This record gives sequence, C-alpha cells and structure tokens, in this order.
Amino acid sequence: MSTANDNGPLVGIVMGSRSDWDTMQHAAARLEALGVPHEVRVVSAHRTPDLLFEYAERAAGRGLRAIIAGAGGAAHLPGMLAAKTAVPVLGVPVQSKALNGLDSLLSIVQMPAGIPVATFAIGSAGAANAALFAAAMLAADHPAIGEALAAFRARQTEDVLAHGDPRH
Amino acid sequence: MSTANDNGPLVGIVMGSRSDWDTMQHAAARLEALGVPHEVRVVSAHRTPDLLFEYAERAAGRGLRAIIAGAGGAAHLPGMLAAKTAVPVLGVPVQSKALNGLDSLLSIVQMPAGIPVATFAIGSAGAANAALFAAAMLAADHPAIGEALAAFRARQTEDVLAHGDPRH
Amino acid sequence: MSTANDNGPLVGIVMGSRSDWDTMQHAAARLEALGVPHEVRVVSAHRTPDLLFEYAERAAGRGLRAIIAGAGGAAHLPGMLAAKTAVPVLGVPVQSKALNGLDSLLSIVQMPAGIPVATFAIGSAGAANAALFAAAMLAADHPAIGEALAAFRARQTEDVLAHGDPRH
Amino acid sequence: MSTANDNGPLVGIVMGSRSDWDTMQHAAARLEALGVPHEVRVVSAHRTPDLLFEYAERAAGRGLRAIIAGAGGAAHLPGMLAAKTAVPVLGVPVQSKALNGLDSLLSIVQMPAGIPVATFAIGSAGAANAALFAAAMLAADHPAIGEALAAFRARQTEDVLAHGDPRH
Amino acid sequence: MSTANDNGPLVGIVMGSRSDWDTMQHAAARLEALGVPHEVRVVSAHRTPDLLFEYAERAAGRGLRAIIAGAGGAAHLPGMLAAKTAVPVLGVPVQSKALNGLDSLLSIVQMPAGIPVATFAIGSAGAANAALFAAAMLAADHPAIGEALAAFRARQTEDVLAHGDPRH
Amino acid sequence: MSTANDNGPLVGIVMGSRSDWDTMQHAAARLEALGVPHEVRVVSAHRTPDLLFEYAERAAGRGLRAIIAGAGGAAHLPGMLAAKTAVPVLGVPVQSKALNGLDSLLSIVQMPAGIPVATFAIGSAGAANAALFAAAMLAADHPAIGEALAAFRARQTEDVLAHGDPRH
Amino acid sequence: MSTANDNGPLVGIVMGSRSDWDTMQHAAARLEALGVPHEVRVVSAHRTPDLLFEYAERAAGRGLRAIIAGAGGAAHLPGMLAAKTAVPVLGVPVQSKALNGLDSLLSIVQMPAGIPVATFAIGSAGAANAALFAAAMLAADHPAIGEALAAFRARQTEDVLAHGDPRH
Amino acid sequence: MSTANDNGPLVGIVMGSRSDWDTMQHAAARLEALGVPHEVRVVSAHRTPDLLFEYAERAAGRGLRAIIAGAGGAAHLPGMLAAKTAVPVLGVPVQSKALNGLDSLLSIVQMPAGIPVATFAIGSAGAANAALFAAAMLAADHPAIGEALAAFRARQTEDVLAHGDPRH
Repeated sequence: MSTANDNGPLVGIVMGSRSDWDTMQHAAARLEALGVPHEVRVVSAHRTPDLLFEYAERAAGRGLRAIIAGAGGAAHLPGMLAAKTAVPVLGVPVQSKALNGLDSLLSIVQMPAGIPVATFAIGSAGAANAALFAAAMLAADHPAIGEALAAFRARQTEDVLAHGDPRH
Repeated sequence: MSTANDNGPLVGIVMGSRSDWDTMQHAAARLEALGVPHEVRVVSAHRTPDLLFEYAERAAGRGLRAIIAGAGGAAHLPGMLAAKTAVPVLGVPVQSKALNGLDSLLSIVQMPAGIPVATFAIGSAGAANAALFAAAMLAADHPAIGEALAAFRARQTEDVLAHGDPRH
Repeated sequence: MSTANDNGPLVGIVMGSRSDWDTMQHAAARLEALGVPHEVRVVSAHRTPDLLFEYAERAAGRGLRAIIAGAGGAAHLPGMLAAKTAVPVLGVPVQSKALNGLDSLLSIVQMPAGIPVATFAIGSAGAANAALFAAAMLAADHPAIGEALAAFRARQTEDVLAHGDPRH
Repeated sequence: MSTANDNGPLVGIVMGSRSDWDTMQHAAARLEALGVPHEVRVVSAHRTPDLLFEYAERAAGRGLRAIIAGAGGAAHLPGMLAAKTAVPVLGVPVQSKALNGLDSLLSIVQMPAGIPVATFAIGSAGAANAALFAAAMLAADHPAIGEALAAFRARQTEDVLAHGDPRH
Repeated sequence: MSTANDNGPLVGIVMGSRSDWDTMQHAAARLEALGVPHEVRVVSAHRTPDLLFEYAERAAGRGLRAIIAGAGGAAHLPGMLAAKTAVPVLGVPVQSKALNGLDSLLSIVQMPAGIPVATFAIGSAGAANAALFAAAMLAADHPAIGEALAAFRARQTEDVLAHGDPRH
Repeated sequence: MSTANDNGPLVGIVMGSRSDWDTMQHAAARLEALGVPHEVRVVSAHRTPDLLFEYAERAAGRGLRAIIAGAGGAAHLPGMLAAKTAVPVLGVPVQSKALNGLDSLLSIVQMPAGIPVATFAIGSAGAANAALFAAAMLAADHPAIGEALAAFRARQTEDVLAHGDPRH
Repeated sequence: MSTANDNGPLVGIVMGSRSDWDTMQHAAARLEALGVPHEVRVVSAHRTPDLLFEYAERAAGRGLRAIIAGAGGAAHLPGMLAAKTAVPVLGVPVQSKALNGLDSLLSIVQMPAGIPVATFAIGSAGAANAALFAAAMLAADHPAIGEALAAFRARQTEDVLAHGDPRH
Repeated sequence: MSTANDNGPLVGIVMGSRSDWDTMQHAAARLEALGVPHEVRVVSAHRTPDLLFEYAERAAGRGLRAIIAGAGGAAHLPGMLAAKTAVPVLGVPVQSKALNGLDSLLSIVQMPAGIPVATFAIGSAGAANAALFAAAMLAADHPAIGEALAAFRARQTEDVLAHGDPRH
C-alpha cells in the first residue's frame, strides 16, 4: 500500500513488465495525489500466468475495488484479469515500439461480449485517466476521494482559464 | 426507467442518433436482464449540445451512477459528457460506415489526461460490455446486481463447457 | 487582437492546450502576415467546456467571421464549437504522440451530417492552410486581405520558379 | 444553375466521375433546400485536366464563391482546383471500393502548406456538410441563406428533442 | 479424436467461440486429409479461463505435439495457452466484424519476447496453413504424415500447372 | 497469344491464382483493345516457384517487353519475377478478403532498393492501368500502339466532356 | 542534363519541393551511375500548376522517355503529369512527417482506371527503384543502358554472395 | 555452425540484408543460449533468388529442422523459402523505416492457403520468439534442448516474481 491508511489498498496497479512503469507511474502518482490507497505490482500474463490468476482470484477478497492493468503489444493482462475476477478492470495500452500502441489498444479494447475491460488512451494519458476513473468509481463510498477528485478537476479548469494566452 | 424500482434509474444510456439504437439496445438488454434500473435517451453532441450539457449537469443529482454513451464517427458525446460531470462515463464506439468504427474508437478512447472515458469494443459487443461493467461498478452497493452479474458469468461459462464441440 | 485595427478580431484561433501552440502559431503567423485581425486563446473542450460554449455563443456577436480550432487525440474542440455557433469552424488536427495525429484527424473530420467542420492537414501545414482559407473567405468583403493573399500566392509560385534546381 | 435566381450560381459542385453523383447529390440537395444557387458538373482531374484548369480559372469571374469538389481514390480534383483559383475549395472524399475512402481522405486533406482544401467527412455526410459550410460562408452577404441555415439547424435540433426515445 | 488411430490426438484445435468453427474447420479438414490425429474443442480465454489453463497444463502429458488456436478481436487464447505449456502453439486470427481481423492478428502475433505464438494469416487460409505447418512439424517423427504432406504439395502444384489459362 | 500477330506476345499477364482473373481480365481486355499482343498465365509464386523462375528467365528471350503480375495477400509474384528478369514488371495488388488489398499493395510496392516493381492501384483499376502503362512503354517502338493509346485517351476525355451533368 | 551526351535528357526527375531532394537524389545518383541522361527540376503541383502542365505538355517533344515524380502528403504531382502527357510517369512517395508516407503512397498509387502512374516504395528505396525501372524501360533502345543495368544487378548479387555472414 | 556439436546445424537463420542482423542477432543469441546448433546467412530473395532456391532445396538434406527467416518491407524471403522446402519456415518481420514493419508483417503473415509461414512479432521480440519456437519444435527429439528451454522459461518467470515492484 502506497498511502498511509488503516485499510488495505483499494486499487491495484499491475503491469506486464518493469519497463511499463514509465507509463504506469502516472496512474500511481494520480492515485497518490487523490489519496487513494493502492498497490503496485509487476504481473506478466505470459511469463507469470499463475500469478495473474492468483492475483485476480484474491482481488475481491483483499478489498480491491478496481484493478488498473497496463500492457503493450499483444496485451493480454487486462483481459485475462477480467476473465478471473468480478472486480472492474481498467486497461491501459502501453505505447509499443513498432506499432506505437495501436496493437496494445486493439488487444485490450476489442474484448468479446461477456467480459469487459474499460480501456483508456495509449500511454501516460491513459494511465492518468484510469486513475481518475478509479477515483470516480470510489467517490460514491469514499467522500474524501470524491472531494479530492472535484478539487483536482476544478484546479485543472482554473489552470486553463488562468493561462488562456499560449504566447506568454 | 425501464425496470420497476422505487428508485430512479442508476444508469443512463445515451446515444448520438436514433440509428445507434441497433447497437445500444445490447446495453439496455443486458442491464434489463441484470435488474439494473436505467433510462434511454437520444442526446446528440452536435445537434443538441445544450441538452448534452444539461443531461450531464443533472446526472449526479438525479442519482445516476454511470452513463453509457454510444456514438459513431467523430464521436464527441462520451467525452463531452465526461467533461461536464463527475459521474463515470462509459463510451461505446458505434461501427461507422466508411471506417468501420476505427474513427469512433479513436475519437472516444484517445482522451487527453484529465478527463477519462472508459471505452469498450466497437459495436454491440462493446455495448453489452459497457452494461456489464456498469453492473460490476454497482455491485458493491447493490448486492442483488452483483448476484445477477455473478449468475450471468457463471451461465456463460457453463454454456461454453456444455458445448465444447463446435461441430454438434 | 493581434493586429492594429479599429475593428475587433475577425478570426479566433483557439486550441485545446498550451502545447498546441507550437502547431497553431503557424496559423497566427500567417494571419498576421496577411493583415487579418485575430485573437488567440486556449479553450479546452474537456477541461473548460463552459468556456467553450461561451466562446462559441459569443463568436458571431463579437464579429468573428471564422474560428480556427486546433486539437489533438480525441479532438472534440472544433466539432463542439461548430455545434454551438453558425460561424464557420476550421479544424486543425494536432500531431499526437502515439498515433501521429491520425486520431486527431479522424476525430475532427468525420463529423456526422448536420454540423460541418472544415478540416485541414495534420500539424503545422494544416494550421497555415486554415489561416489561408480563412483569409480567402474574408477576401470577398475585405479587399485588402484578398490582395495580401494574392500577393502571398504569387510569391510562393515565384519562389518555386526561381529555385527550380534543388541541387543549388 | 439549379435554383431560380437572377444571379448565376454561387457554388459549383464538381466531381471526378459520374459515379460520384450518388455521394455528391447530398451536397446538391442541401444547397437546393437552403436556396443557394449552384451548378453541378463532372470535371475529372485525370481525364479532363484542361477542363479542370479552365473551370478553376473562370470560377471567380463567373461569381462562384465556393467550389465543392468530390473525388475518390487518388483524389486530385479538390487540390488542383485550389491550386488554380482563389475561390475557397471544399473537398469531399468519396468512399472508394478497396480502402473505403481512407485513400480519398488522405489525398484531399494532407495538402502541403500554401494551398488549402477544406475537407469534410468521407461520403454523403461530408457532401451534406460541405454544402452547409458553403451556406455558412455565404450567410454574411446573403441573409436569406443565413436564415435558411439557422432554420435548418433549429429543425434538426428539434428533431432530436422530439424523438428522444430511440425505442419508439 | 477425429481419426482412427490407436494413439491419442497429436494436435489440438481449440477456438474461443463456436462461431469460430466456420474458420477453424479448414484446419480440421486439412489435418483429416493428411491423416493427423487431432481433437476439436471450444476453449474461451475469457469465459472459461480455468479450462484454458487446464487444457494447456495437460497438453504435453496427453501427447499433443501442437495446439492450433483460433480467436478473434482481442484474441488472447493462443498467447495464454503458450504461456502455460511448452507445446508449440499455432495462432489463427479469426476475421472480426468491425476491424476485419486486424485486431485479431495484432493480438496474436505481437507477443513479447519470451513466449512465442506462431501466427498464420487471417481467416480460413490461416487455419488451413496452421494445419499444414503442424503436419510439417510432425513429419520428422511420423513419416506417413510427411508423405501425405508431400503428396498434397505436389498435387497443388500440379493443379496450377494443369490449369494455367485462367480463361478456361 | 491473344491477338492475331506474326510476332509472339509482347506482354505477359500472370497471376497467382485462377481467382485473380476477375481482376486481371481488365488488363487483358485493355491490351486487347489497344492491339497489344499478349499472353495470359497462372503462375503461383508459392505453389509453382519453379515455373515462376522459368517464366522469368525465358521472358526476355521470348520477346516479352513487360510482365503484368497480379497477386493478393502476401503477394510475392511480382517481386520474384522482377528478381529473375530484366524485363520490366508491373504489379497489380488484387483485393484480398480480410484486409481489402492493403496487404497486397504493401507486399508489392515496398520493394527494397535494387529490384523495382512498378505498382498500380488495388483491383481492376490497377489492372487496367498496368495495361495502359505497358502500352505507353511500347509506344516508342510500336507506333500503332501509341496511336491506339492516344485514341483511347482522347475518347475517355470526350466521354467526360459529353456527359458533364451527372444527373442525366 | 546531368550527363555528357549529345542528345537531351531521356528522363526528367521532378519533385514537389526542394525538401524532396533528400529522397530524389537517390534517383538522380542511380541514373547518373547508369549513364542515363536526365534533368532535375522542382515542379510543384500546387504552387506552380501552370509549370506542371507546361512541363508535361512539352515532355514528349523534348525527347523525355520517362518522368520520375516525387511528392509527399497529398501528392498530386505524378498523377497530374500523367494526366497531361503520354510519357510514362513513375511516382515516388516521399516520406511525410505525420503519416510516414502512407498518405503519399495512397495519393499516388490509387489512380482511377484510365491514367496510370507506376508507383514505387516510400522514400529513397522507391527513388532508386524508379531510376532502375526507367533504365530497364530504356534498355531496349539503348543497349549501353541495358548493359550498365545488367552490370549493376550482377554487382549487387555478388555483394550479397561475398558477404554472406552478417557478423563479419 | 555456431555451436560446438558433432552434428551440423539444426536451424538456419537467414535474412534479406546485412542490416537485418541488428534484429536477427536476437534469434542467434537465443539459440546459442539454448545450445541449438545453427548457422547464419544473408540470403536476399530479390538480389540472390538463385541462392534462395538452392538454400531451400538443400535445407532438408543438410539436416535443417527449421529455417528462421527475417526480412523487411515487401518481405518475400520467408514465403519463397517455404514454397521451396518442406522444412518449417519461421518468419520474422523486420521493422521497416517508413511503415514501422507493418508492411513486413503483412508481407510475411498473409500467405495464401497451401504454403504456411509461422510468423512472429515485428522486430527483436519476434526474432527471439522464433528461436524459442524452433527450440520447442526440436525439444521432442532433443531432450537437452527441451531442458534448456524449460530452464529458460522458469528463469524468466522467477525474474518477474523476484522483481514484482517496478519502483525498486
């Protein structure tokens, strides 16, 4: 758990490879800033499939309310987590080397009817937005998170309004 | 509201055009089957922008816990709803005529950091999955929905197991 | 207003983010060179939707004859402006990081029948061309702009003719 | 000229092939409905390049205020017209057989800096929108067209509002 | 097992959904014609993940020498099988509705370094070729299969040579 | 040889499969109409590689001045012919089932430096144009072909001029 | 004319912009090495359309046997030259900034039936190959060019054979 | 042969150009590490077609059990090898300059029914995976290779498990 809190993590951030951290840290930073208790793990669909299943099977019991999963290329991590748990899974397509993340995006978003993965933009914007979405999901039951989220949104609106002339 | 329930709808299904109903009815049918109170509306980002804003502004106050928004082509409806409400927005890319929904998908999923839209697959699979995801979000506070969802998932697993030979 | 002129701006250049200025400055520079009174603003569809609506609603009354709107990724700014004003909207797809602006282009150009956005090339060429197009629109009522535009076009033709051998 | 009017046409609709009429008739129908005097011609960039040049060279003198040009595949008609006239050119990518109009779109929209073509969506939506855009350009000097356009937009908004439930 | 043989199947054909049989029957037909003992099963990565794991874990022990796995959209079946068994996995991208199998192809072929899936063409050609490849793999240890394969290849060469004029 | 002529064929039309004839007949028909002696053969790069080599090796000696090669999918026929003969090879990408000929196009046009294939449009337009191009190549040494080509081009120009109104 | 020769140039290399020279110099260098008399010009379809027409109209009379035309983005130069001359036109798609030359390729290769452009690979490989193709076209009437081409091809084959181990 | 072994190579690694070695060395390194006897050669489909045919024809007789073939752009090497030998061919799409390997991938994977090429990911991941797949094919008859492969897979699993926190 990354945040001081007497409850365990509410959100799990997992990624297929250590190199995905460059992208996924934007999810962690956003959750941290919003005060959402979370954990971070490398779980590879292809190299550690048993860990993936175990992580998914235990997610609900451990109190996770959402899993943010980032992966690139033939990105199977988000979809396979979703296949094994009723906890909502949020997928982040990591930008891949050859195809710039188009492969990652299609591998995550084009799930067949029956098992959903909520998918966000390719790369760091998607990672940040998955965190914001997780916070919005939690806001109903965790008013402090809802307030932090509202404050964040108000702040980003003010930032635009305060700097309306891009030349200065 | 489509379901007898003394509360108002928990989920709003909106779409940019009446012709999107062919796709979005799969979201409505799934919510109906899971007992999730919901409503259905045509709200066009481009032809009725004021209605879009009003719908988004009133969503939280009316008790909506999620908005499922389907649109095709330059699909602005999900993102603009998300810009105007803290209620989680689930985007469904409707298959377009010329580009088969690739335009719809990119217009919905590639949101900039700050305002998330949870995106699902192009077409009816995405509509059905948005409904399943909304149900999963609601399950924490509505045990009956969680049970209906678990039963649905168990049933679809059994269907595959019972018909393992595709030749018969 | 960027140009000394006793009328207000005729063209508004807006963009979704300060980082779009690298691209959109090519529109401003071209308008400046042609003597077209204009203004420059950051207006984010997603972070400042109310400002977007207000800007669009006031555009005609403030004397704007065209709005040049640049945005990247799920680029909703041009289309939403067009939804809220009868002033012609010219869209510039800003080159995005992962998908090189293909997402920006499709999000802007694939508008449904009913609300048009005149779309130009991805990146700085599109920004410059949107400005040239705005000038051409204005030329009928503003002969000086038409003359400046004709001179610009004559000059670029002469430049090619004068340097016909690419080796020197 | 398609519309009774003592002036000549204000808008020229041209297309590269007779088979493009299926698409481009949506531009003509919309101009007709808005009372915009217009003409319709087949002008092939590749089979009748001299006609193309002549049409472009005479456009301004004949009083055309906009040219709507539709073409498919390696669609050179809009860009070559724009190279030869200062009259604003509006390009409509016609849906092609193999590549669904992606080739048409890129051939029209990706113009280099210096010569703009205002591009609209692939197919009939783009044709209709080019007509609406041309009307918006003309509205400043032709109040009746502006009023017809405003009425059209009000009507399409009312249509959505009046049929908000897609199930009936 | 589809072929009379006192050993069990050497090749397993699995697919994510019954609707994939239209494609995958071309693999079965080819194996049948070449006398390769095989079995056919529906195994869904998303709806029956446990069956997928069990199938993969038991594959080597049951004597399977190759698994041909067909799936469409976010096609995770081949890659997840490969993650759980050392038996070579041959992936067949099934043509999907919206994106014509480009999503299926990228989801299967773009595996990260460490876990390979041998990928074949989208659709029935890929299914047939996966079967031919499996037969080629088996030929070293099963001369009869090698002879059947050689005969098949000779026959298809003769077919082209015998019908060299496409007009008759 | 398809045309009465005391010389042998000047152009060879080859294709990877009998099913490509639907496309390639447009090349044959155009050569026929222009009086260009030609022959038609099925030569499969993959099923009859030796025939491919033999055809290419004998092409110059047999008097062929151009080879028009049509193929679909992983279309290797044009490039491999070009690798084996100095006779100019004209490639026609046949529209494929899943990817609409984009695979055929890239497999033919993206030749590495050193061995060129002149590539034409996907499908029947490309087949017809390859024939027209072959005729243009032959015109220098065969004035009758040049005259037939000039007449064809004049006729298609007149056709457009004569039917300038697409509505009648 | 770049090569000492008492005849004028046989091949014209034209390009839409001086910046295309980085690519097109590979065509010039190859023609130079093969002893093919040629000339080099910047001719912009969009900025100098009249020069384009004049160049095309005079090409045959000036003795040009082929025109190699390079352009990027909405690349209209090759197709418009082909529309105005019976001299064979060879198109080279220059790699564009945002879309990596996919736009250039489609704008050149997807010509409608009636006016062919022989298209080569994106970038410098395509430029070199257009030159090799032009040389092959000329070889029938210019034996020295044919011999130079044959020597070039033999040499590149020997280069591969002599350096078969990529590790040294 | 790269590995001390009294048998000749079991796997041939071939590539279309010396510049492909940057990619294909990942196949060689992996085979080396697994103790698989192999050889490395440059064989260009386009510049040395005869060598390609000779290599393929002799492959089975020389004891090769698999050929790993890497090529970029219009990548014909894997498919033409497969056309000439019954030895299984594993294709590696090398990342190309303009199109990032999408052309290479489609040129290799989209083989017509009848001649299969087992295709792997674009670039170095695909090269490494082709080697792992070749090792898995050989494992049945070469237990030491199977053990080395099992050890490699166990090690990569342990690596993920041992470094589960990407922040340290």
